[in-house]
Amino acid sequence: MVDPHYDWEDLTPGFTFTTKSRHVSKEEIIEFASEYDPQPFHLDEEAAKGSILGGLCASGWHSCCIAMRLVADDFYPHCTPLGSPGIEETRWKRPLFAGESVSVTLEVTESRASKSRPALGLTRFLWTMKNEAGDVIMTSDCWVMLARRPNDKKGAA
Amino acid sequence: MVDPHYDWEDLTPGFTFTTKSRHVSKEEIIEFASEYDPQPFHLDEEAAKGSILGGLCASGWHSCCIAMRLVADDFYPHCTPLGSPGIEETRWKRPLFAGESVSVTLEVTESRASKSRPALGLTRFLWTMKNEAGDVIMTSDCWVMLARRPNDKKGAA
Repeated sequence: MVDPHYDWEDLTPGFTFTTKSRHVSKEEIIEFASEYDPQPFHLDEEAAKGSILGGLCASGWHSCCIAMRLVADDFYPHCTPLGSPGIEETRWKRPLFAGESVSVTLEVTESRASKSRPALGLTRFLWTMKNEAGDVIMTSDCWVMLARRPNDKKGAA
Repeated sequence: MVDPHYDWEDLTPGFTFTTKSRHVSKEEIIEFASEYDPQPFHLDEEAAKGSILGGLCASGWHSCCIAMRLVADDFYPHCTPLGSPGIEETRWKRPLFAGESVSVTLEVTESRASKSRPALGLTRFLWTMKNEAGDVIMTSDCWVMLARRPNDKKGAA
């Protein structure tokens, strides 16, 4: 565990954390799209210029995956995440173009104890991915299961 | 274009399509997780057995990406998708375990013309990913922008 360590109890609404920045290359965008989302505007610069998106840009799913990796690298060592039931909402606000660098700010918006599993609680996070100019590329709203403080398991509703 | 070809006008609520099936190997799960979601239950069989998830299973984001690829390969050649504004909701109902094979059934649930872009309409799809036994692994609810029929652009609201 990495200091500071946050149990579920520590992550209350208003808590925020910002990850490091990651550069997203044209090669990575094309490699991901070739594997998982082979649409022309994610694969081919010329086709992308003529599309609504206006230039070669990452698959929306790629943006989600890049955000996940940033959070997994920088924030998850500080807590004990135990999986997620799903995504409440994700908005691809603006294309993530080749050559941009992005970071993720996460904010806790809601928190509740698990009714069925006293060892864990659920925390709702709003992720906001921005480029270096501060433009919002993506927001994503997810619940994550987190370990509770070991001596504080009796209060689960 | 591949027959049959569907313009936005053709994809009305109730339309369904099922993709081919895809086998998901342990190696693919670990490779994806190493790149984008390095949490123990997606990387290590022993750690996964002791987790809530009960065994080595794909990152939820990996399930999304596999679903995207199945739809891109089998359904998108039949229409002209132009990008998506985001995800309304995704539910990871049950882990996608190593060695399972999955397919996606998509259903159109809603449709509306674009107010700002007369050349396109928006179509809301519910994707349901199942394994070979018919267990629902994931559902995902997304709007996608689609090209309209060329001679039918005047009706956009």
